[in-house]
Amino acid sequence: MANFYEDNADLRFYIEKAINWEPVVKAVERDFTSEGGFKSVEEAKEFYIEVLSMVGNFVAEEIAPHAAAVDRVHNTVVDGEVALAPEMDEIFRQIGELGLHTISFPRELGGMNAPTMLYMISSELIARGDVSMMTHFAFHCGIGLVLLMYSVLEGSTEFDPETLEITSTRFQEVIDEIMAGKDWGSMDITEPNAGSDMAALTMKAEQDEEGNWFLTGEKCFITSGNGRHHVVIARSEEPEAGVEDAFSGLKGLSLFWVPAYEDTPEGRKRFVQIDRVEEKIGHHASPTCALVFDRTPAHLIGKRGEGFKLMLKLMNNARISVGFESLGLSEAALRISREYAAERRSMGKSIDRHEMIFEYLETMETETQAVRALLMEAAYLNEQAVRAEFRVRALGDRAPEQSRHYAELSKHYEKKTRRYTPLVKFYAAEKAVEHARMAMQIHGGSGYTTEYGAEKLLRDALVLPIYEGTTQIQALMATKDTLMEIARHPQELVKESAQARWRSVTVRDPLERKVAKIQALCLGAQQNLISRVAGAKFKALHGVPLTAWASTFMNWDPKVDFAPALLHAERLTTMLTDVAVAEILMKQAREFPERRELLERFVERALPRAQYCSDMIATTGDRLLDKLYGQEPVAKQATPAA
Amino acid sequence: MANFYEDNADLRFYIEKAINWEPVVKAVERDFTSEGGFKSVEEAKEFYIEVLSMVGNFVAEEIAPHAAAVDRVHNTVVDGEVALAPEMDEIFRQIGELGLHTISFPRELGGMNAPTMLYMISSELIARGDVSMMTHFAFHCGIGLVLLMYSVLEGSTEFDPETLEITSTRFQEVIDEIMAGKDWGSMDITEPNAGSDMAALTMKAEQDEEGNWFLTGEKCFITSGNGRHHVVIARSEEPEAGVEDAFSGLKGLSLFWVPAYEDTPEGRKRFVQIDRVEEKIGHHASPTCALVFDRTPAHLIGKRGEGFKLMLKLMNNARISVGFESLGLSEAALRISREYAAERRSMGKSIDRHEMIFEYLETMETETQAVRALLMEAAYLNEQAVRAEFRVRALGDRAPEQSRHYAELSKHYEKKTRRYTPLVKFYAAEKAVEHARMAMQIHGGSGYTTEYGAEKLLRDALVLPIYEGTTQIQALMATKDTLMEIARHPQELVKESAQARWRSVTVRDPLERKVAKIQALCLGAQQNLISRVAGAKFKALHGVPLTAWASTFMNWDPKVDFAPALLHAERLTTMLTDVAVAEILMKQAREFPERRELLERFVERALPRAQYCSDMIATTGDRLLDKLYGQEPVAKQATPAA
Repeated sequence: MANFYEDNADLRFYIEKAINWEPVVKAVERDFTSEGGFKSVEEAKEFYIEVLSMVGNFVAEEIAPHAAAVDRVHNTVVDGEVALAPEMDEIFRQIGELGLHTISFPRELGGMNAPTMLYMISSELIARGDVSMMTHFAFHCGIGLVLLMYSVLEGSTEFDPETLEITSTRFQEVIDEIMAGKDWGSMDITEPNAGSDMAALTMKAEQDEEGNWFLTGEKCFITSGNGRHHVVIARSEEPEAGVEDAFSGLKGLSLFWVPAYEDTPEGRKRFVQIDRVEEKIGHHASPTCALVFDRTPAHLIGKRGEGFKLMLKLMNNARISVGFESLGLSEAALRISREYAAERRSMGKSIDRHEMIFEYLETMETETQAVRALLMEAAYLNEQAVRAEFRVRALGDRAPEQSRHYAELSKHYEKKTRRYTPLVKFYAAEKAVEHARMAMQIHGGSGYTTEYGAEKLLRDALVLPIYEGTTQIQALMATKDTLMEIARHPQELVKESAQARWRSVTVRDPLERKVAKIQALCLGAQQNLISRVAGAKFKALHGVPLTAWASTFMNWDPKVDFAPALLHAERLTTMLTDVAVAEILMKQAREFPERRELLERFVERALPRAQYCSDMIATTGDRLLDKLYGQEPVAKQATPAA
Repeated sequence: MANFYEDNADLRFYIEKAINWEPVVKAVERDFTSEGGFKSVEEAKEFYIEVLSMVGNFVAEEIAPHAAAVDRVHNTVVDGEVALAPEMDEIFRQIGELGLHTISFPRELGGMNAPTMLYMISSELIARGDVSMMTHFAFHCGIGLVLLMYSVLEGSTEFDPETLEITSTRFQEVIDEIMAGKDWGSMDITEPNAGSDMAALTMKAEQDEEGNWFLTGEKCFITSGNGRHHVVIARSEEPEAGVEDAFSGLKGLSLFWVPAYEDTPEGRKRFVQIDRVEEKIGHHASPTCALVFDRTPAHLIGKRGEGFKLMLKLMNNARISVGFESLGLSEAALRISREYAAERRSMGKSIDRHEMIFEYLETMETETQAVRALLMEAAYLNEQAVRAEFRVRALGDRAPEQSRHYAELSKHYEKKTRRYTPLVKFYAAEKAVEHARMAMQIHGGSGYTTEYGAEKLLRDALVLPIYEGTTQIQALMATKDTLMEIARHPQELVKESAQARWRSVTVRDPLERKVAKIQALCLGAQQNLISRVAGAKFKALHGVPLTAWASTFMNWDPKVDFAPALLHAERLTTMLTDVAVAEILMKQAREFPERRELLERFVERALPRAQYCSDMIATTGDRLLDKLYGQEPVAKQATPAA
């Protein structure tokens, strides 16, 4: 019997060998205090492997074989509801029976109590079977976990002071419905005129005299938006008059839980109308809805004006999750390519023995492994960040010292995670597209037909660099974070850069010298960018009274000041990613000598790439910026017009 | 009224300003000897502009608006025939009325007598409207021209000794049908088990006692294979027993003209059955057929065993044509991206003012212009090669000295053209895919829906790097040609390389220094590859008796010996292309100062890319080849097994 977990040696390496499960299991099992919980790390780990093996088998046997059929059904709206492929019903019935919707819910709420990262790792397996079914699946358990998190954050979840188990929670009913496979939800953010730019959101949130909230307006591109439990961001406060900062619009947003319908004996009563489902190039098991809210009853989550802040809380999880989806697709592309290339013969040998194809396959394998390495690290750090924050909330005021300890831990891991999240989304999604394209090219003419599945992978992959923040937005995030950090601690950059250059010539191991060289190139590019940014900012002081220089110069606004760096955001992010992956793989190779070969394959490709990005950053950009902004100082011109 | 020619300043620059029409017009108008012909270059040029303007207007008004509708119809076989989109009938009726099918046929056969390159340039305009309709269109006039060429080559076309006009030709009836828009044809090469590898073709050609030919077997991936006039390659000779060379199979191939059906009063009688049309991801106006031949009557073209040789004659034309198709698609991607980015607002400004998108648009523009520059050069050289050869055949034995002159001219231009053809196919097709992907990404979520057309461009583009020889095959061709040339004249490489390095530091103009630097990097990479190839070949001498060393070493077989270079074929071809484009643009900039800005944009991107390819070639490959071939000498191992 096929099994997408058991046939994947690289994935199993992490689960069974590399991951230090101890801190995760301890956090998840609350130091083994729960009565029904596991009593040791080993016991828990064994269970996790069982779960993954079950998922791997289920996906291989029950999802993958139906992926092509589900793909052929383009979603339509029939009588106000989205009609999904008939195969979906049966697959989701089985998912429900297997209890997969409960995977990361706490045991005391009826869940499997597995770490969030186990849920994420399962995403790779499901996405390898069909990435759009994985996306739709994610809006079950995923939305339940989101609501649970918000409830914990706003203080509407109660804990047992001894076991730290949840005794009651605001969204218990929703979670029950979701775990039973009866319902799912969605995140309603995008509007026709506000995609990446959330400050431009206009959906109106109003209160009646009794304090009940109502939402009015349109949302679009809402993934799985035909479900019941919508988390909606809307404008509850009027923008202050005369404020110019483009971000000011973010302060007026609040978050709401909106049940989209109610099933009554007389039939379904809808509060949110499905205006249409988008006709897309692929990703067909995941309906993308345009929704209309017309004084739809809504329930505030958290406080007024906290909408954007709460939304940001999801970012890490959501982006890492899309990374795992992308990874599953890359793995699928690699597998079908290998299989086809081994069978297809040309010029007297199978085409996988032709030099170029041989290299393609190794590149796909190396990059897929690199994506997995980065994701595992990100998921692991994120798990610890989230668990520590959860612990803080569970402890409440009862143990201030312990609470402080976990708060610091959470902050520590949160910061580490934040370094990775834009990189994983950026890297994994783009690689999924590239790998699907390579798969198609390896298949030649057959790849262009619908017969072999390569074109389906590519169609499905193309949404990954678009949703949950485009590749370009990820690059901007990573670049801004990096430069803000430098602006705060410029001396660190100089020091690190000198160290990396030193290591790149002195370290004994030639492979580690190359890693240091990649680091040095990346830090050098940062120095180049920050000095161009500072130069532009210096120019902007022209006409500013001398007394105001210090405050003007030290007060960095990434949206305005970083223009020279934003141009190179993708190149810098490529380098940041290569550094992150190289560091992780180097650590692995030190601990597990058999992984050194992967490090070698990766570094061989990453070093010339880093050199290229560094060259591009060093030699281009000024002409383009002159053309874009004319002769006026960049920092001044970059101010948003509206 | 929209006009795809008149709105395109870069294209018009070539037609109206840069191209030296004189030699082309003189050749086409046979030194102004024809009675009904043009009497001056200016007169002809004016006519060419009129034709392009008419095509530009027709495509904008009558093709582009129907592209989406035609795309929605997936071809199927109904009662043995392919059912095309109903809009196609009307469009092709209008094409016929406009006389576009006659564009490059000689005047005396009823054609417009325009240069072949005018037909190719029209392809850009039509492909900008819809690339798959362009492909289908190409199999009308294109197949007619192919048959005319073969007839000239085999000597079944007669010429007037004074005017050099054609007085009779074997395929007159076919050409008449095609010019009238009644029929079209196809090139039937690929078989289920033989794609890039023509030596593996198995379709059987047999003769009966009266010498009539019959074909039996299957062909697949036949573009526009539902037409009447098939040019088919088939095996007429048995392979020699015990011959190991993979190319030996090519010698047994012959070329045939096969009418696929006859329309009789009782209905259509088919000699070639359409087994199915492929269900493809896009390119829907161009049906891709699988055909069955069962003792189908066929007519030999040229001599027995000349099939492969005659097929090669088409290669230049076909690949340049696909280049122009790709160019049209790139132009379309650029236009919709610009338009969308100018309208879509985010963060207080239109997104074309965001640094990254601003650069994307400039990159698309620069590369589209680079593709056009390369194609114009290739088409111009090809025109002169083909016209000179045509002249040789028209002169026959009547003017041996003139004939020799034209034969030399033809050889000269043929060689120059051959340098460009794999590059244009390689570059233009890959860029079309990249530009369509960029268009999709610029459109964000909307790009993933079918509403805005970006996804259609991408779906259509993806066939371009596959058909008419994949990107990988083009890279192999270019690499083998380059290395064979070096093997023949190794001292040239050393000399050129030294000169380029010298120019890269001494030339006064910094932009020209950069061009020299790109040339030097490319030549350096060639030196690197040839020395690795020679090294491997040297190793292969192991065990060969000393007396046989010289002959073994000097007898290069690109299929076996070039393994170390084949791995880097795509990288080398990228550099060869960048060099070719940079040289063309530099020449342009010298003559037309306003083109210097384009050269600057191109070189800024090409130089770091050349450095990157050079790095990859220099630092990678050995490990991969060791892994692929183990420890045995590469040259020995690379021998095809079958």
